[in-house]
Amino acid sequence: MNGPFVTIDGNEAAARIAHACSEIVAIYPITPASPMGELADGWSQAGRVNLWGDVPEVIEMQSEGGAAGALHGALQAGALGSTFTASQGLLLMIPNLYKIAGELTPTVIHVAARSIATHALSIFGDHSDVMACRQTGAALLASGSVQEAQDLALIAHAATLRTRVPFLHFFDGFRTSHEVAKIAVVDEATIGEMIDDDLVAAHRDRGLNPNRPVLRGTAQNPDVFFQAREACNPFHDAVPAAVQGEMDRFAELTGRQYRLFDYWGAPDAEHVVILMGSGVGTTREAVEAEVAAGAKVGVLAVRLYRPFSAAALVSALPESVRRIAVLDRTKEPGSVGEPLYTDVVAALAEHLGADAPEVVGGRFGLSSKEYTPAMALAVLDNLATPAPRNHFTVGIVDDVGLTSLEVDPDRWHEPDDVVRAVFYGLGSDGTVGANKNSVKIIGDLTDRYAQGYFVYDSKKSGSTTVSHLRTAPAPIESAYLVEEASFVACHQFGFLDRVDVLAVAGHRATFLLNSPYGPEEVWDRLPRQVQQQIIDKGLDLRVIDAAAVARDAGLGGRVNTVLQTCFFLLAGVLEPEAAIAAIKRAIEASYAKRGQVVLQRNFAAVDAAVANVHRVEVPNEASSAIELREPVPAEAPDFVQRVTSLMLAGHGDRLPVSALPVDGTFPTGTARWEKRAIATEIPVWDPDICIDCGRCALICPHAAIRMKVFDAASAVGAPAGFKYKDWKSDGDASEVMTIQVAPDDCTGCGVCVSICPAKSKEDVSHKSIDMMPVGDHVDEERRNWDFFSALPEADR
Amino acid sequence: MNGPFVTIDGNEAAARIAHACSEIVAIYPITPASPMGELADGWSQAGRVNLWGDVPEVIEMQSEGGAAGALHGALQAGALGSTFTASQGLLLMIPNLYKIAGELTPTVIHVAARSIATHALSIFGDHSDVMACRQTGAALLASGSVQEAQDLALIAHAATLRTRVPFLHFFDGFRTSHEVAKIAVVDEATIGEMIDDDLVAAHRDRGLNPNRPVLRGTAQNPDVFFQAREACNPFHDAVPAAVQGEMDRFAELTGRQYRLFDYWGAPDAEHVVILMGSGVGTTREAVEAEVAAGAKVGVLAVRLYRPFSAAALVSALPESVRRIAVLDRTKEPGSVGEPLYTDVVAALAEHLGADAPEVVGGRFGLSSKEYTPAMALAVLDNLATPAPRNHFTVGIVDDVGLTSLEVDPDRWHEPDDVVRAVFYGLGSDGTVGANKNSVKIIGDLTDRYAQGYFVYDSKKSGSTTVSHLRTAPAPIESAYLVEEASFVACHQFGFLDRVDVLAVAGHRATFLLNSPYGPEEVWDRLPRQVQQQIIDKGLDLRVIDAAAVARDAGLGGRVNTVLQTCFFLLAGVLEPEAAIAAIKRAIEASYAKRGQVVLQRNFAAVDAAVANVHRVEVPNEASSAIELREPVPAEAPDFVQRVTSLMLAGHGDRLPVSALPVDGTFPTGTARWEKRAIATEIPVWDPDICIDCGRCALICPHAAIRMKVFDAASAVGAPAGFKYKDWKSDGDASEVMTIQVAPDDCTGCGVCVSICPAKSKEDVSHKSIDMMPVGDHVDEERRNWDFFSALPEADR
Repeated sequence: MNGPFVTIDGNEAAARIAHACSEIVAIYPITPASPMGELADGWSQAGRVNLWGDVPEVIEMQSEGGAAGALHGALQAGALGSTFTASQGLLLMIPNLYKIAGELTPTVIHVAARSIATHALSIFGDHSDVMACRQTGAALLASGSVQEAQDLALIAHAATLRTRVPFLHFFDGFRTSHEVAKIAVVDEATIGEMIDDDLVAAHRDRGLNPNRPVLRGTAQNPDVFFQAREACNPFHDAVPAAVQGEMDRFAELTGRQYRLFDYWGAPDAEHVVILMGSGVGTTREAVEAEVAAGAKVGVLAVRLYRPFSAAALVSALPESVRRIAVLDRTKEPGSVGEPLYTDVVAALAEHLGADAPEVVGGRFGLSSKEYTPAMALAVLDNLATPAPRNHFTVGIVDDVGLTSLEVDPDRWHEPDDVVRAVFYGLGSDGTVGANKNSVKIIGDLTDRYAQGYFVYDSKKSGSTTVSHLRTAPAPIESAYLVEEASFVACHQFGFLDRVDVLAVAGHRATFLLNSPYGPEEVWDRLPRQVQQQIIDKGLDLRVIDAAAVARDAGLGGRVNTVLQTCFFLLAGVLEPEAAIAAIKRAIEASYAKRGQVVLQRNFAAVDAAVANVHRVEVPNEASSAIELREPVPAEAPDFVQRVTSLMLAGHGDRLPVSALPVDGTFPTGTARWEKRAIATEIPVWDPDICIDCGRCALICPHAAIRMKVFDAASAVGAPAGFKYKDWKSDGDASEVMTIQVAPDDCTGCGVCVSICPAKSKEDVSHKSIDMMPVGDHVDEERRNWDFFSALPEADR
Repeated sequence: MNGPFVTIDGNEAAARIAHACSEIVAIYPITPASPMGELADGWSQAGRVNLWGDVPEVIEMQSEGGAAGALHGALQAGALGSTFTASQGLLLMIPNLYKIAGELTPTVIHVAARSIATHALSIFGDHSDVMACRQTGAALLASGSVQEAQDLALIAHAATLRTRVPFLHFFDGFRTSHEVAKIAVVDEATIGEMIDDDLVAAHRDRGLNPNRPVLRGTAQNPDVFFQAREACNPFHDAVPAAVQGEMDRFAELTGRQYRLFDYWGAPDAEHVVILMGSGVGTTREAVEAEVAAGAKVGVLAVRLYRPFSAAALVSALPESVRRIAVLDRTKEPGSVGEPLYTDVVAALAEHLGADAPEVVGGRFGLSSKEYTPAMALAVLDNLATPAPRNHFTVGIVDDVGLTSLEVDPDRWHEPDDVVRAVFYGLGSDGTVGANKNSVKIIGDLTDRYAQGYFVYDSKKSGSTTVSHLRTAPAPIESAYLVEEASFVACHQFGFLDRVDVLAVAGHRATFLLNSPYGPEEVWDRLPRQVQQQIIDKGLDLRVIDAAAVARDAGLGGRVNTVLQTCFFLLAGVLEPEAAIAAIKRAIEASYAKRGQVVLQRNFAAVDAAVANVHRVEVPNEASSAIELREPVPAEAPDFVQRVTSLMLAGHGDRLPVSALPVDGTFPTGTARWEKRAIATEIPVWDPDICIDCGRCALICPHAAIRMKVFDAASAVGAPAGFKYKDWKSDGDASEVMTIQVAPDDCTGCGVCVSICPAKSKEDVSHKSIDMMPVGDHVDEERRNWDFFSALPEADR
């Protein structure tokens, strides 16, 4: 692949093309497409110009219906327009889409494809939204990677002008939209070459204009509607060849050749998988490994899904194909089969009749469900059975309809030349940002390719984040989470007893642990199961007290430079010296404008990190008395034990179909069983200066501070440190009051402290409610809370 | 078929069931579904109760999006709900439809299926709207006639409760929604039997209720969404058997048996047509005629389109089938094929593999384009060719893509036992209302079946209406316009020189002409071409001066009773005496409450009509000097000559694909070439009392009155009757003023008269602008207008 290269995500890759090719961008935000609109808006705010030297007007409407209407209007006026959307947002555009297509109006809507809400909403990726538009007359062009999100975005903008058919250019929400990857960038000149000015002029000339009036948007009656509806046929018929033409022109300009249907695999393949989107690269990995082992298999990527060229499909398939598995990343209950499957069956039946290969269809990857090479192998294995299963699922366990293919995770191992790193952090702790930065450093400052993908849970701030980084000498097609990581980093020591951070670690991987305990002391602080994993996998355990190093370097609590240095030092991406040099260059680029002091502190942190990361001698036996915490207590109800607890522990993928409600109806009151214990500091109450105002309990956004008035007699049997004070009331003098904190529900946000009006006279910085680090006293606080919970309130 | 019978349209048939089975009906009007909402609203206003003795709450929202949201909310609260919609209205419900289906919530949305706006809007019928919902998870149940619109509506309400899957029950907009037909009515007891109270109770128990809280409408992440999405499978899988179960129960209760796929034709058929909706009955007529002639053909009606039971499809088809034509009433540009076609191909490929019959697909009936038995025969003929055409169209001439099948209209003649009547009237002249009444009279007061269908043009008031009536001893399945009418009535004499009213007349048909000219005089008043048609077809020409008869009977201008009587007397529906008795009974039912005087006047009109309708002796030769008027003048531009003129003349159906713009873009300013000449009275100006205020020209909503000031010298050469008067101005004393009327643009609305302030002193009822009947002076007015148009305005 030829450079120059940039390291960006799929949204930015597509949005940059759209911004360059548009005069009007009508937007309305929806996850995961929002960044496209935000970027376009930001670029226009900053004065970035389009191909014609003008700053595109970016207008935010009040819904996607409005965005589609504004776009339609702008196009009718002869402007070049585009928009970005997903999921329900795209559904609201459907009425306009029929009109825009029916009026043969060029535009591109870039879609970060996302599930449509059914039994539950989901912000994650699959093709159910674009599939709901396949009947509108718009062309559908699928990208499967960040590189393609850029390249096919441009091909879409070129082809829509050529054909007058509007394009939906889509790529998988999150998996592609939010993957950060190093891609060969299309320069402005190439964009300009692809956009034919004569076609732009022709579009303008068709715009509604009082100087050359035409009538559009009329009502037609049964006498002529049908004929008029057929009059557009030549335009749709011409799209496949036109798109291939633009692909060929693009290849001449950039060296990257795309086809309507791209095939990889054995030229004499008998079994072929057909799919589109980010699953293509993953399937390619599996197919290429199988072909290398002598198997006659292949994979066909659908790029232009509408208009669907049956002839191009047939000619892209090897003649030797006997069986085909079509994978759909959508579900249409009650259909004969999912859409790509039925389309392939019909296309082959038309062109090959009784000689058509046998076709089976399956669903995969709904709502960003993982799709791995091992699953692709399961799909190929199914084709090799005497009677392949049809209407299967892959990636889940369906113990109800028995649709799921069995997947053997041991069938696949990631290639050795790929460095695979996984980082566990806390939402807002900077881990994700640092890792995005690391990907950029590798991408921008080395010859290697790099990929970053980031898994958040929906609780956002304060929840676990898992960063998946790959870097390799060749472009990375793996659109799935890292497996068998060669480097695992846990940035939060507190995760160890409740998150299975080492499940992803490969044999002999490096495990970097941010630990307040030094190399001598840390082993005994690990839960027994973690010790066992380290021993069993032969991990190279390294510890650093990143907080201490950062503090000593004058960086306060900002540990990212320290941990990032450790990653570069230990992960084997670069030689240590080169790694240190690269990270310092990156620091210079980031912080130079903040002045020499900041720069020097960061450099010092790098050097201190190198000096302070220590190897831990790993004993032969797991000896710890510390056990993993159960995700929910034993007294939780059955549903919480069976279902919620697995989701909380990050093992929701293991839940079979039977575990989930059929209609999205869940029991209530289950959140109380989730004890996140994410606070690093929790409030501690000083009854001596408390003025009984109760504001702390009132304001706590997590309901983790409670106040209770009770009879002093009830305090008999209280834990040793259980605090309470006299209650000034008109009532019984025997009443006392306590304020207690639920240490596992508190997030450490500190709002209680900020509102507490009771200050110590001696030290006004000390309040009645004040934060203290969660240390060993947490168990004491738990005991206090349990006692408090059971305490009967005073009768009044 | 067992009675009792009612004579209603498809909208009423469906709405009645929905109202009886609902507690909440959330509505928003859209053609052609609006009457369902209006009826439900009216019934609830009038206190009509549902099955449980409650008056359903009908709430009109601010869009279909709101209606769907209100419905969704009501259902979640455990209420029984439904709504009515079509076209873009249904598109706005898509997001909620995914949710309602995903949450397994029973409801029925009744859809008067209508085209979606593309290159142009259309209010007419096809399946593009329901097809845009086929991926949502809702069940789709298709009715093909008014009878079915009632019966399957009930089956849908029963089945949705049984299955928890929401239903879209749809029927063809206008063709079924607005067809008035005699149907066997389902009584309240049967409705009650079909709705299982236990299932209703179960639905209520699932409703959100604070007393037994559950959580619904959550967000799910990649860990569990896919599994949860598959958890609904058993519910969708169970739908086909459940629907068949409800159909069987319905058959036990009513004797009318429906199946998921209903087959008619030869048991050893080799060629079969598959379709759904109102085209089924029409195809049946063609198929049954062919089978009677020994052909091995059949037709399969799809009733339950989603969930699509491939097994039921295969078992409904004769094993002998070798070739299938699937007809889709929708168009999806860029698809492999239209949806029913691809579904059938995939279903057969799965079940029969290489033994699957050959399948071709075609489009028909878009936007209520006529679909006739002759077209069905063309589809069967195509199957009989060595290489049947695929992706064809039928019902149009596609001279661009050459997709269209050739249709031989002579291949089909309507059966002799069907009385077929066609009536030409003017919008708002009462013709349509009278014909609806005639259908009801036949349906309610005789043993015969009857059907009425009404074609309006979009100009509504003041435009041509064509009423198509059939009556026969057996139920009528013909869902197409009357061909070879046995009775043609022209209620407006003025139509004869511009509307081809006799094109539809069959050989030896009766032609009733409402004529101001008596039987002796009328012949010479007919255009030559009309005379020739009467002679060539051997028509039985009858005339009546309905206006005179009505006036004499004291009915003022209301001619309906008179013309209706002539129809009953002449059309051969009943024996004359029985017909007169029937119409009098109907009058009694309609007018009894208006008192004896009104009743007697109507009775008198009936008797006078019988006495005053006269047979006209038809000469052997067409001798008239009157020629048909050209629809547009010779100086109109090319597009107007080639395209607009055919549409104006009612021959838009003849326009080939090449005549229509590819993207809905029309030239402007073409309305000026349409000279409707519909006024029966036009304003005439009296300059002697005119006060020059100009209000008449200002107010005219059709811009048909103009005022002009010009030099008196310019009046040289004016037509004899061209009037003008002195112009009181400060300027040149030689200036004069005229007010002229464009007689062919005037609609005779009389607004000009109402605003004219200039009254004659002698007779204050005489104004300067006053209406006069359009008589022979119209040619004089035309000459005046032409002179006026060319007259140069005074230079000022």
